Amino acid sequence: MNTFGNKVTLTTFGESHGPALGGVLDGIPAGVALDMEQIQRQMARRRPGQSAITTARKEADMVELLSGVFEGRTTGTPIGFIIRNSDQHSADYDNLRHVFRPSHADYTYFMKYGVRDHRGGGRSSARETAVRVAAGAIAMQVLAKMGISVCSYTSQVGDICLDRPYHALDLAAVDSNAVRCPDADTARRMIALIEQVKREGDTVGGVVTGVIRGLRPGVGEPMFDKLQARLAYAMLSINAAKGFDYGMGFDGVGRRGSQMNDAFVRSSDPGRPLRTATNHSGGIQGGISNGEDVYFRVAFKPVATLLRPVSTFDDEFEAVTVQPRGRHDACVLPRAVPVVDAMAALVTLDLVESVSDKV
Amino acid sequence: MNTFGNKVTLTTFGESHGPALGGVLDGIPAGVALDMEQIQRQMARRRPGQSAITTARKEADMVELLSGVFEGRTTGTPIGFIIRNSDQHSADYDNLRHVFRPSHADYTYFMKYGVRDHRGGGRSSARETAVRVAAGAIAMQVLAKMGISVCSYTSQVGDICLDRPYHALDLAAVDSNAVRCPDADTARRMIALIEQVKREGDTVGGVVTGVIRGLRPGVGEPMFDKLQARLAYAMLSINAAKGFDYGMGFDGVGRRGSQMNDAFVRSSDPGRPLRTATNHSGGIQGGISNGEDVYFRVAFKPVATLLRPVSTFDDEFEAVTVQPRGRHDACVLPRAVPVVDAMAALVTLDLVESVSDKV
Amino acid sequence: MNTFGNKVTLTTFGESHGPALGGVLDGIPAGVALDMEQIQRQMARRRPGQSAITTARKEADMVELLSGVFEGRTTGTPIGFIIRNSDQHSADYDNLRHVFRPSHADYTYFMKYGVRDHRGGGRSSARETAVRVAAGAIAMQVLAKMGISVCSYTSQVGDICLDRPYHALDLAAVDSNAVRCPDADTARRMIALIEQVKREGDTVGGVVTGVIRGLRPGVGEPMFDKLQARLAYAMLSINAAKGFDYGMGFDGVGRRGSQMNDAFVRSSDPGRPLRTATNHSGGIQGGISNGEDVYFRVAFKPVATLLRPVSTFDDEFEAVTVQPRGRHDACVLPRAVPVVDAMAALVTLDLVESVSDKV
Amino acid sequence: MNTFGNKVTLTTFGESHGPALGGVLDGIPAGVALDMEQIQRQMARRRPGQSAITTARKEADMVELLSGVFEGRTTGTPIGFIIRNSDQHSADYDNLRHVFRPSHADYTYFMKYGVRDHRGGGRSSARETAVRVAAGAIAMQVLAKMGISVCSYTSQVGDICLDRPYHALDLAAVDSNAVRCPDADTARRMIALIEQVKREGDTVGGVVTGVIRGLRPGVGEPMFDKLQARLAYAMLSINAAKGFDYGMGFDGVGRRGSQMNDAFVRSSDPGRPLRTATNHSGGIQGGISNGEDVYFRVAFKPVATLLRPVSTFDDEFEAVTVQPRGRHDACVLPRAVPVVDAMAALVTLDLVESVSDKV
Repeated sequence: MNTFGNKVTLTTFGESHGPALGGVLDGIPAGVALDMEQIQRQMARRRPGQSAITTARKEADMVELLSGVFEGRTTGTPIGFIIRNSDQHSADYDNLRHVFRPSHADYTYFMKYGVRDHRGGGRSSARETAVRVAAGAIAMQVLAKMGISVCSYTSQVGDICLDRPYHALDLAAVDSNAVRCPDADTARRMIALIEQVKREGDTVGGVVTGVIRGLRPGVGEPMFDKLQARLAYAMLSINAAKGFDYGMGFDGVGRRGSQMNDAFVRSSDPGRPLRTATNHSGGIQGGISNGEDVYFRVAFKPVATLLRPVSTFDDEFEAVTVQPRGRHDACVLPRAVPVVDAMAALVTLDLVESVSDKV
Repeated sequence: MNTFGNKVTLTTFGESHGPALGGVLDGIPAGVALDMEQIQRQMARRRPGQSAITTARKEADMVELLSGVFEGRTTGTPIGFIIRNSDQHSADYDNLRHVFRPSHADYTYFMKYGVRDHRGGGRSSARETAVRVAAGAIAMQVLAKMGISVCSYTSQVGDICLDRPYHALDLAAVDSNAVRCPDADTARRMIALIEQVKREGDTVGGVVTGVIRGLRPGVGEPMFDKLQARLAYAMLSINAAKGFDYGMGFDGVGRRGSQMNDAFVRSSDPGRPLRTATNHSGGIQGGISNGEDVYFRVAFKPVATLLRPVSTFDDEFEAVTVQPRGRHDACVLPRAVPVVDAMAALVTLDLVESVSDKV
Repeated sequence: MNTFGNKVTLTTFGESHGPALGGVLDGIPAGVALDMEQIQRQMARRRPGQSAITTARKEADMVELLSGVFEGRTTGTPIGFIIRNSDQHSADYDNLRHVFRPSHADYTYFMKYGVRDHRGGGRSSARETAVRVAAGAIAMQVLAKMGISVCSYTSQVGDICLDRPYHALDLAAVDSNAVRCPDADTARRMIALIEQVKREGDTVGGVVTGVIRGLRPGVGEPMFDKLQARLAYAMLSINAAKGFDYGMGFDGVGRRGSQMNDAFVRSSDPGRPLRTATNHSGGIQGGISNGEDVYFRVAFKPVATLLRPVSTFDDEFEAVTVQPRGRHDACVLPRAVPVVDAMAALVTLDLVESVSDKV
Repeated sequence: MNTFGNKVTLTTFGESHGPALGGVLDGIPAGVALDMEQIQRQMARRRPGQSAITTARKEADMVELLSGVFEGRTTGTPIGFIIRNSDQHSADYDNLRHVFRPSHADYTYFMKYGVRDHRGGGRSSARETAVRVAAGAIAMQVLAKMGISVCSYTSQVGDICLDRPYHALDLAAVDSNAVRCPDADTARRMIALIEQVKREGDTVGGVVTGVIRGLRPGVGEPMFDKLQARLAYAMLSINAAKGFDYGMGFDGVGRRGSQMNDAFVRSSDPGRPLRTATNHSGGIQGGISNGEDVYFRVAFKPVATLLRPVSTFDDEFEAVTVQPRGRHDACVLPRAVPVVDAMAALVTLDLVESVSDKV
């Protein structure tokens, strides 16, 4: 189904080349003043055509709020919104009407539904993430009132890896370059790699690192809806995502327990009477936040759409060669960053709103 | 909440040292003959005390079916079952009543609920996974009727890594050694490492690799309930799990798209008219199975309970030193394998049962 | 939350005087040819201003489909749609900005949310049912392909009661008069009563009877999601609905079991090998359809908005007198009929799509 | 599915003649002291064999708590419990193994699942309501801490109707007679009727009236999860229930709006600054509690099991005559009262726990 969340839910709809995409964000508390410009700023971070290293498709990506806000404040009723598609170039896709592109969702949609909107990938297009970013921008405003912030950045492109941990970086610098890596030198090398890969008609993957700050202890449900499980679910639902880990993650499996445990230290903050001296755990124990920063990584594959002729099959299972003519990203990482932000914000707000555990 | 799944749901309850744990498995179709011995065989794979490299706690882990099965067959009504706790040694935990052990869930449960069952971790104990294994064993029997199988194995312990891919291994050999690694030589080295770590009073992590075979194209929901997203959610809900990836996963981010795409080849199987020559994708496109094997990895941290004195704090935030006296695993990997099997089976059955997409 | 259903879900949003209302209908199978004119015909049955006995508000109530349909057929992806508000007359409501009208939702929304859109009742307006009717019209088209139909009609207005059971009526005649009662003589008397009540500035309630035909045995979940329980839930979620019963309902409680049991008779239809000679049960046993017609009643109160001055209180709890100036129905029954149709269709399709009980 | 509720959920399992029935009650806040005797007192009110006018089946109906309670207090983890079946007399049902009794769920279960546990109705038996009563008794204890109480009583048996409204009765007298009608004279006549019907080998239906007191304004979700919609859903999920209404319900449809509106009056209670002079609405406006008492009715049919020979068909669709030999109620109303209590408590607690609407 197309609904995400339990207490705060996002339901999305829309295809890449239909009249509009949209969403319904439900469960947002009443009385929150919404800053529409902040929403559009997040949209601009995901928007195609934002820089030389992203696709040339032009979309205004204006979020049109239809309900749930009255005189600038949320009312507690569902927030419905749409985002019109404008620069569609649907004819670009006529040659793909019957084609199954390799490592795309063309074949699987066809096998599942027997019918598909072939234009730009239809529902499987990453254009759907525009709706997530809009909803996430609202969630981030609600979280901000609780002192909670979400911030993610590009930490790897191809084999170029940012080798410093998040707490050694200036996260305010994420948007200071086109690739959204807060280290200027690494960013330069990442951009050079993306430009080279683009010239080769190829694509390259990478990693986004996300950080959630300001969570009080107690957020997350201890069994299936562990904070990390909800984050993993959210992140793997993003197009092209291939992996998730948190805290020391995959890098921690080679260590000893004695190296990984986080010793407690006393704190003067009454809301979090104990802190930890290290944070190998990534801010979560038993599925529940412990008051430290939550940090995680999301792996993105190199996108499947190459700017080269491709030999493949059509829906009568005959061999064909296609030359993709759409406008595509050589590397989705810069545009994936606001999507990771959005999904992290939606998960966090959902779990924060679900907390009412003590009598 | 303590319910997993949409169409096939598992609701679990129970603490490590209460009278019993149990579950309700709902949505299982009627008319399936259940093999109780197969269920107990899966239980035996997770059971403590099964080998020299696992904890010495002795539990029969007998699954007592209470409903949903009549004359050996499922009836379509919910399958309720309990697993009695027998070898509880609750007094072992008296010294921990007021203690927050580092990197355990003691502190987070206390901050969330204000009260906790301290005995053996209570609800946060991995003993809860016994319920998952029982339910998963039933799910595996239903899947077997559809030609679908789930198999996982230990592919890394500490820095000892099985370097061959799953399709180059004999997965029938998973249970031929105590660590559940299908390569005998690697298994020997893993076991030696676990024994050494245990002698040092320390713990070590690792990786489980899972494989799902026999899925027809079309399983998985394209938006939030992508097959990989549900798997990630399921795996990160397991105690000590820190990461998940599928297909080429984190290892694929450094490659080019041209190296990663899986070219189609024609197939004579009418249910899957196209196959792929390679399977970098891990059997999923756009969240939907494409008919190839689904494979994935789950990272497990070294468990936090060391067999050494530990300095920490109590629930009045005073410094204390504790000597854990419970019986613990130096490495959870061998016992995590059947849990990964179970969660993979539950996810798969849930999504297979949800398929009714065409008119 | 604003989502209805399990397998086929409708999520709605929108206020009476915002830019638009809308919905997301998810879970509709792929490949269904949609007749847009049939959708608009259902909309016209609910539309204000359709006859002399309904409110004079004029709304085109055009359903704008935004997704989920490609070249006239459903694709299996969510169907998003909006209905623009046009004839809003928001200024009519300025005098109500701070007023709690008796027996309206003004006070309860204020107490729950602390803020409300006062214009025309905001989210609490029955205008929201336009979205349900649009979604229900789509559901009815899917059901029609399965041989299932839903039909409801006005069976009581005030104390004027249609005294014949549904099977003695020509249900094709429902729309032959303004009050949607299939008996011409009773309809005349109902209309006369509504006109009289309207002249008095008052309102009157009534009953809608609904019939679902063509259900095969086996639809409905036996425990909480009994077919009748889902219908009751759906019907009581409609504005102004006060009661629900099915089969002999409240009228059956005075009878003896020996009078009420429905004896089986053999049938030549292999899909329903037994029929019943009578149908006091209303087509359901143990929450599951038995293949007979499902029939039920929904009670609607006289709406609270009178065309008279009303003494009440404002949001500072001071006494005020208000003269409602909006345009209102003296009797909602004629316009409630398509809403009951819609909700019955959504419940039925949801439960039909959930059926996969045997292996 | 067999799970009820959103924030506070009850999952049930078990058949009439299996080893045990049980449930998992999830979402109960931590720290509530549970009175086990109060739970057993509610069980005793539903128990068979409690008086001369109920079935002679003897069941201790001991609730065995398995989890979620530590040292007498809830821990916030799921409360699992079982109720063993003891006095099963399964052989009583051998003659019914292949028989479809009229107006029972035998045929519909068979058509849905192809297999059924024929003993005592299996899962369709009203014995399942024992689980609801146990869970409801816990919910009532949590509600009591919030000043909320639930009370229901028999208001009609056959054509004998208690003609005074709930607020003119002494609800403390509900259990002062076997039929659970708080008016002694009416109760006597009801009991006489049940005894006469029983002598005739017949059954008779009736009505339960329920009252929820102490709800603050703001409980209930305004769209589909209206308080009345959730109550209707809960009540129609009870075996033999045929109808639900609230406030003036079906009796109000013949009135004028001017007679039905509830005028506000000022109140000195800061939590409910306005009260209403009358309460025709039944304490709910727009799906949300207004702070007045919520009252409702539930219609129960005469149960289908007669103590007479019955002509019917078997599962090869051949005519048979059966003589029911089980032990049955001539009137379920006395035992339905605690079930209505339980479901009302579960609905109320679920919606109260879901409230977090303002920032």
